[in-house]
Amino acid sequence: MPVPPIGRRQFITAAGGTLFCTLSGHRMSANSHVSMAGMERLGAEVPVPPLVRAADSDDQPHATFVSATAHAAQGTGQIREYWIRAERTHWNIVPTHRDGMMNARVPGRSTFTALAYRAYSPNFAAPLGPATIPGPLLEAQTGDTIVVNFRNETGAPVTMHPHGIFYTSDMDGAYKGAYTTPGGFVQNKRTFQYVWEAHPGTEGSWFYHDHGPLDPVPVFKGLFGPLIIRPAGAPVPDTEFFLTLHSFIPLATGLDNSFSCINGRAYADNTPTLRAQVGQSVAFHVFALDDDFHAFHLHGHRWVDPGGDLVIDTKVLGPGDTMTAEFIEDNPGRWFYHCHVFSHLHMGMNGWYIVSP
Amino acid sequence: MPVPPIGRRQFITAAGGTLFCTLSGHRMSANSHVSMAGMERLGAEVPVPPLVRAADSDDQPHATFVSATAHAAQGTGQIREYWIRAERTHWNIVPTHRDGMMNARVPGRSTFTALAYRAYSPNFAAPLGPATIPGPLLEAQTGDTIVVNFRNETGAPVTMHPHGIFYTSDMDGAYKGAYTTPGGFVQNKRTFQYVWEAHPGTEGSWFYHDHGPLDPVPVFKGLFGPLIIRPAGAPVPDTEFFLTLHSFIPLATGLDNSFSCINGRAYADNTPTLRAQVGQSVAFHVFALDDDFHAFHLHGHRWVDPGGDLVIDTKVLGPGDTMTAEFIEDNPGRWFYHCHVFSHLHMGMNGWYIVSP
Amino acid sequence: MPVPPIGRRQFITAAGGTLFCTLSGHRMSANSHVSMAGMERLGAEVPVPPLVRAADSDDQPHATFVSATAHAAQGTGQIREYWIRAERTHWNIVPTHRDGMMNARVPGRSTFTALAYRAYSPNFAAPLGPATIPGPLLEAQTGDTIVVNFRNETGAPVTMHPHGIFYTSDMDGAYKGAYTTPGGFVQNKRTFQYVWEAHPGTEGSWFYHDHGPLDPVPVFKGLFGPLIIRPAGAPVPDTEFFLTLHSFIPLATGLDNSFSCINGRAYADNTPTLRAQVGQSVAFHVFALDDDFHAFHLHGHRWVDPGGDLVIDTKVLGPGDTMTAEFIEDNPGRWFYHCHVFSHLHMGMNGWYIVSP
Repeated sequence: MPVPPIGRRQFITAAGGTLFCTLSGHRMSANSHVSMAGMERLGAEVPVPPLVRAADSDDQPHATFVSATAHAAQGTGQIREYWIRAERTHWNIVPTHRDGMMNARVPGRSTFTALAYRAYSPNFAAPLGPATIPGPLLEAQTGDTIVVNFRNETGAPVTMHPHGIFYTSDMDGAYKGAYTTPGGFVQNKRTFQYVWEAHPGTEGSWFYHDHGPLDPVPVFKGLFGPLIIRPAGAPVPDTEFFLTLHSFIPLATGLDNSFSCINGRAYADNTPTLRAQVGQSVAFHVFALDDDFHAFHLHGHRWVDPGGDLVIDTKVLGPGDTMTAEFIEDNPGRWFYHCHVFSHLHMGMNGWYIVSP
Repeated sequence: MPVPPIGRRQFITAAGGTLFCTLSGHRMSANSHVSMAGMERLGAEVPVPPLVRAADSDDQPHATFVSATAHAAQGTGQIREYWIRAERTHWNIVPTHRDGMMNARVPGRSTFTALAYRAYSPNFAAPLGPATIPGPLLEAQTGDTIVVNFRNETGAPVTMHPHGIFYTSDMDGAYKGAYTTPGGFVQNKRTFQYVWEAHPGTEGSWFYHDHGPLDPVPVFKGLFGPLIIRPAGAPVPDTEFFLTLHSFIPLATGLDNSFSCINGRAYADNTPTLRAQVGQSVAFHVFALDDDFHAFHLHGHRWVDPGGDLVIDTKVLGPGDTMTAEFIEDNPGRWFYHCHVFSHLHMGMNGWYIVSP
Repeated sequence: MPVPPIGRRQFITAAGGTLFCTLSGHRMSANSHVSMAGMERLGAEVPVPPLVRAADSDDQPHATFVSATAHAAQGTGQIREYWIRAERTHWNIVPTHRDGMMNARVPGRSTFTALAYRAYSPNFAAPLGPATIPGPLLEAQTGDTIVVNFRNETGAPVTMHPHGIFYTSDMDGAYKGAYTTPGGFVQNKRTFQYVWEAHPGTEGSWFYHDHGPLDPVPVFKGLFGPLIIRPAGAPVPDTEFFLTLHSFIPLATGLDNSFSCINGRAYADNTPTLRAQVGQSVAFHVFALDDDFHAFHLHGHRWVDPGGDLVIDTKVLGPGDTMTAEFIEDNPGRWFYHCHVFSHLHMGMNGWYIVSP
């Protein structure tokens, strides 16, 4: 069944499809494909909100950042400054073309043009590494202020919206229709400086993602990343992993199949192969960010569910939900971690966790 | 794809559909439409259960209520007496025809004949206001007894089934096939008096809904409402909100699309616009009641998950599930609250929360 | 829509279906039927992993078990030895052909060849009862060692993978592609001895299931069962129930419809009719094991969610997830327990709980 491009697409209800989202007045199902060109066209159809237009006409538009030290008074701790671009990246969901769990070939195409948040050195001088999905880890301790100098190079308006951390309403990175402020509508080639504060009571494992006018398309193309706020002075685990359970669906990829992914990849040997050693303190920070519910399971291990005292080895996660599993490693060998939803497991949401003695 | 009326409908499996429920021996998918006339016909096909028939032949059928004071001995607290009718109401899911979040028009029809629980003054003398979805808030403190004088004006048998509160098995408002007692099969134009007791240990944020012989159709047409049991003497939050995450699907509405709703409406500017002030104690009481799982998210805020000590800003809710988010308001501005399931968010499950300084 | 047998089946994406899993390189949807013959054929296509082949050539293959007493040193407690076969069984999902909740006939076929774990007396001398779905309860106390002498009589490779309890990586019963050890690929007519240890910190209500090379098909045909690890010396509830929320889908049954099941049966009067008495301590141990999320609800009762102090009457469960509801029975009558997902409730996931005064 070919995926109709935007423009030729009929209202999805006419074809008996299921409404997935409405973008700029166009209604589409999970199988509609929004290409990069389509995203640009859709983005161009969204009127620039009045408060964004007003800010745009300033002498000093968003290209100029407030010096990070200007924020020093806001928190009791450090300024954590990041330079992050949202950009396009050629992405292979199954680079090995193998399913290591089933020891089988994964047929079909698995490459598309994705979007990623990518960390840069100050003033966007140079990338700090290749584009990754999820994006760079943002870290703070209680009392710190996170400053993200954000530049949009995707071709369409996108944003950064964080979870968990404190932010004022002009810093939430959410498109709000007529009420949108500049942080909720960062146009292509423009910049915005987000300031988020790790107030006491915000400690936890969180994340950030696009929440702009084309939401949810940019999220489904890869615009999300982890954020952690640690209690000041608390010990950091010897080994910790940041995992995102999500999917790459035809809406975002134009590929024939959906892939159930962990950190942008599907199937063991493509998803992260995690490593630890007996005796280490280990933390799995997991968040879910697609249209599905997931059940994170780790073989050979169990942990106390944070916030209570129940021992579990499987944890339900909904979209926007996070969990942390912490334990002292005591069990060497080659283990699976995976989503326990069987179809997700078998559409790629699994990986290796290898513990050395 | 036209929705076949009941009667012409074939077994849904013949058409490759997915079984959603069986009503009076008819099998139907989520896209089958059960109109009010269809509900009447289906209701008429259900035999009146023997114990209901027996009670019906009493000299004093359900039109006569026990005086509320007769219940006074049952609890240690007050009698909270309600007069509630289930009735039809003309309902517009998207009265503004706008999606305030995306600042876009919502095309298509959004009006249908819904069902609602509606509060009346004693002896059903007069309605206390217009019919609402969800229905009226039922409140009690530990030790109180809730007496609901219930009258069915829907045209087909329906009931009221509460969650959380204590009730004896003849007061559970559930159709139980051959074992059904009168509270589980309230016929059209008949009444029943439910008595529910807020025993110690039942404190919490709960809800009630139809659980009669046509379940789940009346629920999907709007028959549900909130119920709260507060610890005796506990302070009430300065501001509190009761939200239901649910959907209006073609089965219930006959409309072309499903709508992801909060309190009977879809899309910001139609869903409740909530208001609070910095410094107030605020409570969000949320329950979910459709076929889906949801993830309640509030921008710019976080709260301690009750029952533990974990700070969250997104909470998974399944059908029949409830949550309460309580915090002291500290963050002025215009915020979103929404389901973080992306397709639900974009099919209408979002709203404004406006905090004044 | 006839369900194509394996072999004639095209890639499901060609037909617009949704990928459910990949088995031995074949991609299939939830509506593909994998018969027992199909399972044998698929199993024969999976190469015997190298480490399994190596173990196979030993003089003493898996037919010989280590004496249970040899394990005595491993734990501080008892050896709990089980003899369990995985075998085929003729299974009727709706033996009464009635839906007791709706007092209605359930039309259509409901019988298929299922798989079940079945307990035997030592050395597989004789079955301890008929095959059941779920399989036999495995019990241990803190410090005990569970030894399962497992024999596969299904016709295709299957395993036993436990949750919660401690096991070394060669005892996890998971197929791991090229890294598979003998416990992860128990061939037809072969045996394997699993040794699992109830270390301190593993106490809880858990379960076990197939995790072999044909996963998830054997699970969906019935290969799962309960496992409980009790704190040493803790009192056992007066009455306890072990319930599995799962489904029998066309993939596994070849039947026209999916059934939403509790313990292998659908619809009240087929699912377990549970009984207790006022004054008894009661425990419901529930686990979920299909592709869906569930919301376990019990009428007329509520309980403290373990691990916290929140009172609930409905609990979300994902695949691989478990819960325990414990309370002192105080409410006589005929009650429902059911999944609160409405379509699951109405596709059979409900049953009776009868409390005598």
